[in-house]
Amino acid sequence: MSLYTQLFYAKEIDALFSDSESIAQMLRVEAALAEAQANKGLFSKAVAETIKTHCRIGDIHVEKLKKAISLGGNAAIPLVKKLTQTVKNQDSEAAKYIHLGATSQDVVDTAMVLQIQEYIVWLDAKITFFEQQLVALTLKYRQTIMIGRTLLQQAKPTTFGFKTAGWLEAISRSKQRLEEVKQRVLVIQLGGAVGNGNANISIEIQEEMARLLGLKPSFTWHSHRDNLAEIASVLGILSGSLGKIAKDVSLLMQTEIGEVFEGAAEGKGRSSTMPHKRNPVTCAAILANANRLPNLVATILSAMPQEHERSVGLWHSEWEVLVEIMQLTAGSLEKSIALVEGLEVDENRMMENLELTKGLIYAENIALALAPKIGKSEAHEWIENACKQAIDEKKHLKEVVLEMNLELDDLDALFNPENAIGLSLELIDQVVKKYQ
Amino acid sequence: MSLYTQLFYAKEIDALFSDSESIAQMLRVEAALAEAQANKGLFSKAVAETIKTHCRIGDIHVEKLKKAISLGGNAAIPLVKKLTQTVKNQDSEAAKYIHLGATSQDVVDTAMVLQIQEYIVWLDAKITFFEQQLVALTLKYRQTIMIGRTLLQQAKPTTFGFKTAGWLEAISRSKQRLEEVKQRVLVIQLGGAVGNGNANISIEIQEEMARLLGLKPSFTWHSHRDNLAEIASVLGILSGSLGKIAKDVSLLMQTEIGEVFEGAAEGKGRSSTMPHKRNPVTCAAILANANRLPNLVATILSAMPQEHERSVGLWHSEWEVLVEIMQLTAGSLEKSIALVEGLEVDENRMMENLELTKGLIYAENIALALAPKIGKSEAHEWIENACKQAIDEKKHLKEVVLEMNLELDDLDALFNPENAIGLSLELIDQVVKKYQ
Amino acid sequence: MSLYTQLFYAKEIDALFSDSESIAQMLRVEAALAEAQANKGLFSKAVAETIKTHCRIGDIHVEKLKKAISLGGNAAIPLVKKLTQTVKNQDSEAAKYIHLGATSQDVVDTAMVLQIQEYIVWLDAKITFFEQQLVALTLKYRQTIMIGRTLLQQAKPTTFGFKTAGWLEAISRSKQRLEEVKQRVLVIQLGGAVGNGNANISIEIQEEMARLLGLKPSFTWHSHRDNLAEIASVLGILSGSLGKIAKDVSLLMQTEIGEVFEGAAEGKGRSSTMPHKRNPVTCAAILANANRLPNLVATILSAMPQEHERSVGLWHSEWEVLVEIMQLTAGSLEKSIALVEGLEVDENRMMENLELTKGLIYAENIALALAPKIGKSEAHEWIENACKQAIDEKKHLKEVVLEMNLELDDLDALFNPENAIGLSLELIDQVVKKYQ
Amino acid sequence: MSLYTQLFYAKEIDALFSDSESIAQMLRVEAALAEAQANKGLFSKAVAETIKTHCRIGDIHVEKLKKAISLGGNAAIPLVKKLTQTVKNQDSEAAKYIHLGATSQDVVDTAMVLQIQEYIVWLDAKITFFEQQLVALTLKYRQTIMIGRTLLQQAKPTTFGFKTAGWLEAISRSKQRLEEVKQRVLVIQLGGAVGNGNANISIEIQEEMARLLGLKPSFTWHSHRDNLAEIASVLGILSGSLGKIAKDVSLLMQTEIGEVFEGAAEGKGRSSTMPHKRNPVTCAAILANANRLPNLVATILSAMPQEHERSVGLWHSEWEVLVEIMQLTAGSLEKSIALVEGLEVDENRMMENLELTKGLIYAENIALALAPKIGKSEAHEWIENACKQAIDEKKHLKEVVLEMNLELDDLDALFNPENAIGLSLELIDQVVKKYQ
Repeated sequence: MSLYTQLFYAKEIDALFSDSESIAQMLRVEAALAEAQANKGLFSKAVAETIKTHCRIGDIHVEKLKKAISLGGNAAIPLVKKLTQTVKNQDSEAAKYIHLGATSQDVVDTAMVLQIQEYIVWLDAKITFFEQQLVALTLKYRQTIMIGRTLLQQAKPTTFGFKTAGWLEAISRSKQRLEEVKQRVLVIQLGGAVGNGNANISIEIQEEMARLLGLKPSFTWHSHRDNLAEIASVLGILSGSLGKIAKDVSLLMQTEIGEVFEGAAEGKGRSSTMPHKRNPVTCAAILANANRLPNLVATILSAMPQEHERSVGLWHSEWEVLVEIMQLTAGSLEKSIALVEGLEVDENRMMENLELTKGLIYAENIALALAPKIGKSEAHEWIENACKQAIDEKKHLKEVVLEMNLELDDLDALFNPENAIGLSLELIDQVVKKYQ
Repeated sequence: MSLYTQLFYAKEIDALFSDSESIAQMLRVEAALAEAQANKGLFSKAVAETIKTHCRIGDIHVEKLKKAISLGGNAAIPLVKKLTQTVKNQDSEAAKYIHLGATSQDVVDTAMVLQIQEYIVWLDAKITFFEQQLVALTLKYRQTIMIGRTLLQQAKPTTFGFKTAGWLEAISRSKQRLEEVKQRVLVIQLGGAVGNGNANISIEIQEEMARLLGLKPSFTWHSHRDNLAEIASVLGILSGSLGKIAKDVSLLMQTEIGEVFEGAAEGKGRSSTMPHKRNPVTCAAILANANRLPNLVATILSAMPQEHERSVGLWHSEWEVLVEIMQLTAGSLEKSIALVEGLEVDENRMMENLELTKGLIYAENIALALAPKIGKSEAHEWIENACKQAIDEKKHLKEVVLEMNLELDDLDALFNPENAIGLSLELIDQVVKKYQ
Repeated sequence: MSLYTQLFYAKEIDALFSDSESIAQMLRVEAALAEAQANKGLFSKAVAETIKTHCRIGDIHVEKLKKAISLGGNAAIPLVKKLTQTVKNQDSEAAKYIHLGATSQDVVDTAMVLQIQEYIVWLDAKITFFEQQLVALTLKYRQTIMIGRTLLQQAKPTTFGFKTAGWLEAISRSKQRLEEVKQRVLVIQLGGAVGNGNANISIEIQEEMARLLGLKPSFTWHSHRDNLAEIASVLGILSGSLGKIAKDVSLLMQTEIGEVFEGAAEGKGRSSTMPHKRNPVTCAAILANANRLPNLVATILSAMPQEHERSVGLWHSEWEVLVEIMQLTAGSLEKSIALVEGLEVDENRMMENLELTKGLIYAENIALALAPKIGKSEAHEWIENACKQAIDEKKHLKEVVLEMNLELDDLDALFNPENAIGLSLELIDQVVKKYQ
Repeated sequence: MSLYTQLFYAKEIDALFSDSESIAQMLRVEAALAEAQANKGLFSKAVAETIKTHCRIGDIHVEKLKKAISLGGNAAIPLVKKLTQTVKNQDSEAAKYIHLGATSQDVVDTAMVLQIQEYIVWLDAKITFFEQQLVALTLKYRQTIMIGRTLLQQAKPTTFGFKTAGWLEAISRSKQRLEEVKQRVLVIQLGGAVGNGNANISIEIQEEMARLLGLKPSFTWHSHRDNLAEIASVLGILSGSLGKIAKDVSLLMQTEIGEVFEGAAEGKGRSSTMPHKRNPVTCAAILANANRLPNLVATILSAMPQEHERSVGLWHSEWEVLVEIMQLTAGSLEKSIALVEGLEVDENRMMENLELTKGLIYAENIALALAPKIGKSEAHEWIENACKQAIDEKKHLKEVVLEMNLELDDLDALFNPENAIGLSLELIDQVVKKYQ
């Protein structure tokens, strides 16, 4: 269903996974194979050139191909047949050298890797941009004090920049993973019928084809799919980290909290009959994707125990799911960038919310200040009573403490949130300097 | 990705989930709402008629709508806006009564239920047909003896009809479940902004709208999604049972077994360079779907703990996934029907395979026959030795038994597979009579 | 890991799944089989009595058995061996009739069903109790007005009783599903080696064994697991609905909302250094389970395409997972009952929170009242301006409306939440009367 | 349920995850924290020593602790309380310094990482050993010719060593991943209440504590769980590759194929009544785990979008699941080692099975040899007819070819499997030399 194309997916990259582009990648593989074989002397370069010339999507009737796929069981079988017919019409000799020594899985798998390759280039650039955005966001709100919340309860003060530094670190680790997976996933598949090669796809031809496609050669992985499972996992993890950001923003947007908001836009997330609402539409899309990705990754993992030299069904289950994993993750990233781009922060509301507990969030501060005077356990006991009294009498803790006449040198300082953010600033600086 | 539309999906029913059909169902809901409100006197029937007239897909520019969806966050928001504009151009008074009292989730959810409703009608008919096919298959091969296999090892004889009777029983239970889920899932959604109704969507209007759509009224389920989770599970279970059938056939098609085959077709599953291969292409598609469905069901289940009166993200994650569950299950069923339709059974090969262990599958028969003569434990010990000897000397067990000169009245009968199929025939008859 | 036994699981029912109880159920199956065979004349009742006498868990050395399980591949193989040895020591003749005609899967599966049977009895009683609790809760807070929230934004008023009526309806549908699954899952397994029966486990013996165990007979389901998948799904759905309740409570407990709370208890969810926190510990446990269940259900679903007459691996993957599904669901239900039992509702805070938007939640009310006076679209336009002004000037909407000098008869009534809860009370009454 | 401890899990490593060991790791964290704080001058080393002395599991009453966990919501809360009481009894001053500045999640998370650390050491050694086993296996069967199978159909010859070289490569990539994940997952958690540190857990104390535990310091990851998701994925992928090996072996063990077998052992996988069966019990366990792992990984991924500074429920859902992922993967690896250790290969049967298609698997060979003589397309057409005739007349293809009187120089060579294994040997050598 494509009704939600623009809600969950990424405008910029979705074309990469269109029917015609998917077929085009398979044709690229056939062309590269022919070129590699010619370069290594299997046949003339003219033959390769003829084949290459016909490896163009324009000649393919996609709907006919789709029908043939359901008979052949994969896209390469009818595609090679069609390509062969087309070339034959012009040069019957050249037609004999198409797909020479290869098996259909070689083509389908390598074409998928080519899509992954283009996808990773795009994703890399996007993540780098997103990192920079998050660095800027963190610096901007480095000292913007807000309450930290654990188990959905106000706990102790932190800064918004500290929160976003955490987002940044998580995204940055996803970038590392993406870097590491490349060496294993950006490889060709060229094994022939049962994977063990033959004279037409010799080791040197494998190397040449890999070189032509900007990939690495690899031992046949027809039924060893760990590399695909790895890229799936890496994307699932990235989507999870993006989901965490959206979760935070959607919670901070709650009417009763109102500290951080998605950017507004004409017709976005507003209701005319409920004018106070600002629906977290972008967060909803990212969180929806975060709910889908884990199970799509599970499908790729559960497809791993493939039978013998080629699986019946498990291999087939990867095709659409891998593409969906890439598309939804791209959508989440594109939307996260828009989210951070338009983010509105209400610093006043953050300060107001710090006062909601009437000073109770500073209780530990008081106890620590009291300890040198009256002893640690007494201080602790004392503050517990003060808190109880503040809650029961609905008073501010500061008021209760004042009434108790304790000689604390600088009571205001103890209730000053700036003194309650721990090492937020140092820790932020430590993170940010890595990106500068 | 639609490249594999015809491989994994169902030609007959996929149109139901097209963009335009999805929108058409939402328009059906708006029309029914207006009609119900007019029937109950909220406004004139002429107004309802005007609204209804414009609730047609032809007026909707799908691509524009898709863009607007990404701003509004769901399909109903821009659709209602567009519909209102269209009606307003003709009758500004009538335009005021569109979507009266309803919320966008009412429309999206009820439209989804309408799709489920049409889907279930189709599925019901298909399952009934499939049941009949399986009854016929079971009767045809009722006495066709083959080896039963446990843990992929030959165990004892059974009949092919007994195997297919098991398939039939599983499918039949799925049909029962589909029947039971109807009462809970075929309900309208009409709760208004926070689900608690209002004057414009009173209980009697809810009942009237339900009546008009052939659904039942229901307490608002905006954030209670157990019914959708149930239909998802029911379809997941059906796909699993279809996967079991495809698993059996694909295993029986193995070159080394060769007992049962997918039907052949021009261009289907054959390779010119490997003429002996008959690839189980249909099984592959069904098994691929069976690997995807469980995790799609998991997504619907994990979307259940929705926040308050409408979720941010979890609701959104259902839309495409529910449709995919319906489509892939339909695909599996359509393909299973084709599979059974074309099934080829090699009864001779079944008989040959029964002899592969050289009589060892009859060992227990011999022991049982010996017991009255020499005592049970002696019989058991004796047969163990005989089997060991048969294996070591690569002899047929019958030969070894003969050499041992035991006075067994009818040795041939003991090695006759017809006498080793247990209660297969009675059990089949017990099953089949339920369908006659 | 059992460190969290009391956090995620149910004290009352976990014993049912202990090692010794699991073995005891298998012994119950062997005893019932022998009794059924004796009742139908296969051997003397004295023999059955002897076997039954030894079918007691006290004789089994669990640790030895566990070691043997890893060789045999399932629990029944070593158990039958051990049982046979024990009986043999006393009555070598009786020993010959143990497990007669059965296969180990018959015992393992039927024992699992016996556990499901006891589990369902317990669960049924718990759900009934929980339903009654929810009915009482709904009646108690029938008119307790609070804000309804969609996409985590304040939307329009509702009542807390309306919210809990939604919880009740969802739980009640789970109860229906549990009722319906019984007919399919509470069946024996007794098929012998390849499922097609034999003289020792004839149809009448199958029926007798079923009768003795309070189950129904069934066509062999050794490799047809839809019934187990169904009970797994039903429990997964129940856990999801319980997760929805916990999600609501945990969100309502937020410091900034503070409307509903888990009951407090000595040492529960409190922090001495953060005295204002009331951690939703019970909700955390229920939500944790709700995050695990969907994927455990997916495992059972993905185990469905089992090979031939007994699977290698898929069957084995069900054992621990099915038990975990039952245990975690029981834990969630037990904890949900405690949650509702101790629920604290702050009605004053609910009223205060209704005022957080300064009257904006009543905007539509005003527009509806204005319409008859100035026309619908004017009313709409007018209220949008008023809202804008209220937001910009941080005024209450009522104040803005007053300043605009519109002649609205009863402005106070329009801003009275009691007039803004739609059909909450009627809808609640409609639900509750089903349980009275 | 622990009945299957020895079937699915690893004897050697399971103790690491026992209740007492889990608690011991938390105590290790508390001891290291105190030591780090003393080393950095927060208090005397004597105090740290006193604390450390009491950080021993012997003092902890596990059952009492488990009860307290269900109130506190995690294991660290009651543990710190108990530890404080114990130390207080001896040295009330020292008791004040326990857990100073830390939060319970710091302890729970770091303790989990310590378990992961020990687990990885064990796993690393096991994988290395397994790699060596697979190298040896590959060398041993380097030239052992067998049929390669695609979609469960005989395709073309390969060697068993080529197949196991594929296993080796997949395992080797898992080892790389495990190496890479270390830098991200082997980090401490020490952030205090909301993660932003405080004077008692300064950056230098964080570094010192990390040093003492052999881990790296890290920015707080209380609600950023990508690192745990990564190790979960890495283990899920490994389990999938092990599942692939078990899948191959279980299929090759089929009665009708009989080429490769699990090692036999007293009481393992044999049935006295079905003496010919050799149940793949070890494969069943590995495949069962491979069916469970993907969904356990999905749970960890779906737990990622955690709320604010600490999640309510998602964090809690990780604990048991992560442990289960580690245990089941360890079980699969331990069992895979045993599987390869005892593997029996029937080279004669492999040769026999190559003849099952009566020469059809050599069809392409013939066509290639014919082409220079009669042209490519003629050769192709010719061989198709020959194959058809062979099938129809149930003759060997060689016989048909002979009858056709074609002048092929060395017909025997063309039907010699040694000439049909492609580049198997070179490709194997290329792989194996990496490990030598």
